Amino acid sequence: MNPTLVEVTRGGRIESVHRGAAVVVDTDGRVIFAAGDAESEIYPRSAAKPLQALPLVASGAAEQFGLTDAEIALACGSHAGQPEHVSVAESMLRKAGRDASSLECGVHWPLGEAAARGLAACGGLPTALHNNCSGKHAGFICLACQRRLDPTGYVRPEHPVMREVTAALAAATAATLDDSHLGIDGCSIPTFALPLRALATGFARLGTGHHLSPSLAQASARIRTAIAANPLMLAGTDRFDTRIATTYGEAVLCKCGAEGTAAAAIPELGIGLAIKIDDGAGRAVEVAMASLLLRFLADSHVDREELGQLVNSPLRNWNGLTVGRLRAC
Amino acid sequence: MNPTLVEVTRGGRIESVHRGAAVVVDTDGRVIFAAGDAESEIYPRSAAKPLQALPLVASGAAEQFGLTDAEIALACGSHAGQPEHVSVAESMLRKAGRDASSLECGVHWPLGEAAARGLAACGGLPTALHNNCSGKHAGFICLACQRRLDPTGYVRPEHPVMREVTAALAAATAATLDDSHLGIDGCSIPTFALPLRALATGFARLGTGHHLSPSLAQASARIRTAIAANPLMLAGTDRFDTRIATTYGEAVLCKCGAEGTAAAAIPELGIGLAIKIDDGAGRAVEVAMASLLLRFLADSHVDREELGQLVNSPLRNWNGLTVGRLRAC
Repeated sequence: MNPTLVEVTRGGRIESVHRGAAVVVDTDGRVIFAAGDAESEIYPRSAAKPLQALPLVASGAAEQFGLTDAEIALACGSHAGQPEHVSVAESMLRKAGRDASSLECGVHWPLGEAAARGLAACGGLPTALHNNCSGKHAGFICLACQRRLDPTGYVRPEHPVMREVTAALAAATAATLDDSHLGIDGCSIPTFALPLRALATGFARLGTGHHLSPSLAQASARIRTAIAANPLMLAGTDRFDTRIATTYGEAVLCKCGAEGTAAAAIPELGIGLAIKIDDGAGRAVEVAMASLLLRFLADSHVDREELGQLVNSPLRNWNGLTVGRLRAC
Repeated sequence: MNPTLVEVTRGGRIESVHRGAAVVVDTDGRVIFAAGDAESEIYPRSAAKPLQALPLVASGAAEQFGLTDAEIALACGSHAGQPEHVSVAESMLRKAGRDASSLECGVHWPLGEAAARGLAACGGLPTALHNNCSGKHAGFICLACQRRLDPTGYVRPEHPVMREVTAALAAATAATLDDSHLGIDGCSIPTFALPLRALATGFARLGTGHHLSPSLAQASARIRTAIAANPLMLAGTDRFDTRIATTYGEAVLCKCGAEGTAAAAIPELGIGLAIKIDDGAGRAVEVAMASLLLRFLADSHVDREELGQLVNSPLRNWNGLTVGRLRAC
C-alpha cells in the first residue's frame, strides 16, 4: 500500500487524498530515498520523452537537419498546442522534407485551454501538429529520414526507428523492455512498463551521462541544454514542467507524463527522481514532485518561493476565494 | 482504508486505481450495502444540488414565477454551459425580475469543451450564466424574490435563503450541518461535510418523499419529474448524469459532484446510493455509480447495455485504438 503523498483540503478538512510511490536514485540505480513501492512496474508515458529523444541527437539527425535547441526541446515535450509549438513542430518536419501528413500521433484539440479556444476563435480545427506529442513524433520522423528509412509505421514497436528509441530507453534505464511489458500510449507509440526505480535511474543518467555510451552521453548534454534554453517547448505557458525549467534551468530537468507520472534529474547531485500517483492524477504528481525537488535541491540553487508555492498552493474558487489547499504530505 | 472501486488498465496491466466508499440505504438510513467507510464525512459538493433545490419548489417560488420543468431541472444541475443552459438560466432570472448581474457564482468558461470552443468561435466571453451552477443560483434568487428578500449575499450561510436551503438539506439527510462542518464550494455557497450514509439517505427520501414534510415531499416529486423530462439540463450532451436520466427517466435520479462525489435514488426500491472516490476523480465515480446502479436496478428497468458500457468502457487513444479499459472492480 503506497502512502498518501498529496492532500486536498477544504474548510479545514481533508477532502481528497492521492497515494503514490516516489523514489530517488543515483546513477547506479541505488536507492537514496523511497516512499512506497519503488520496484512496482509503471508505464512511464510521456515522462520518458527526454529519454526517447536521445537517438534523435545521438544518431546525428539533429545535426544533419540543423535542428535548433527549441526543436530538440519540443521533441522532449508534451506541449499545450500553442501557436509557437505548432510552428516549431512544422519546422522540424520541413527540415526532414516532410509535413504533418507524416505524423502518426493522431489529432486532438490543444491541451492548453486558452490555446484551444484561440484556435476555435480563428475558425481553426486541430491537426496532428496540435497533438501534444507532435514534437516527439517529428523527431522520430527526422530520425527515420536521417537513417534513409521510410517513416511510415514508425509508431510500431518493430519499426527500426522505434527499435532504436526502445534500445536507448533500455540502455538508460537498464530495464527489460520486451513484449510482456508493452502498452500503447495515447499517441500510438509503445510505452513499456518498467520499475519506477528504473525510470529514476534513466533520469539520473540523462542528467549526468554516466553509464551511457559516449554518443548517448553527448546527446543527453545537448538535450539538457536545449530544454533549459527553451522551457516553453517542454509544456506550455504556466504549465508545471515549463515553470520548473524556467526557474531552475540546467539545475533540474523535470518531465511529467499522463496518469500521474513524472521523472526528474538533478545533474549536480547525480540523482534521478521518479513518481507515480496511484490514481493517475496530474495535479498530485506536480505537488509531489515539487516537494521531492525541494527536499533534494542544494540550498544554493533553490528558489524556495517557487517550489514552496507548488508544494502547498491555495485552491481558489470561481470568485477567487481561497477555499482549500493542495499540499504535499 | 477504502477498497479499490475502479481500475484503469493498459496493455493488460493495471495502470491506475481509484479507491473510495460506496453505500446504499433505505429511507430510514439503514445500510443495505456498503463498501468502505460509509460514516466518513465528505463534502457532497454538487451531488447535493437536487436536495438544495427543494425549497425553490416547496416555497411556492417555482409556481409563482411559472418555472418550467426545464428550469427546475437546471436548478438541480451542473451544466456544461451549452447555449440551451445559458438561455434557461437567463429565463429563470427574468421571471424573477432579475438578470445575470444578480448571480454570485463567479464566471468560468463552459465546462463542456465543445461549448467553450463554440463560445470562443463566436468571439464570446463567458458570463456567470455559463457557470455550471448558474441554474442553482438562479433558483436561489427566485426563492429570495418570492420571499421578498434582497438576494444580495444569498451565497452566505447566514442569508435567509441559504438558511432555508441548509434546513432542507438537513431535513432530508438528518445530518448536523453546523459551522464545524462548513466548507465553501466552487460557486461560493456553503458545502457541509456530512456522512456519506447521510447523503444516500437524503436521496432515498428525495426519491420517495418518505420522512419529508408534505411540502418537501411534494417538491421532491416535482423535481424527479422535471429532471426525467429534461435530462440535458442536469449536465449536458454525452455527460454521465444526462445519459443516466435519458436512459432511465424517473426510475433513477443520479447527480455527480466535484471531487469524485455522486448520489442517486431508485424510487421504486426506496433506496438511496452515495459514493465518494478518495482521490476526487470524476472518471472513477461515474464508473462506480454505474456499477452500483447495475447491481440494484430491478431487471425490468435495466437497459443493461447502457450501464454495461459505463461500467467497463474501452480507453481509446488519439488514433481511436483501444489501449486499455476503465472498469469497476
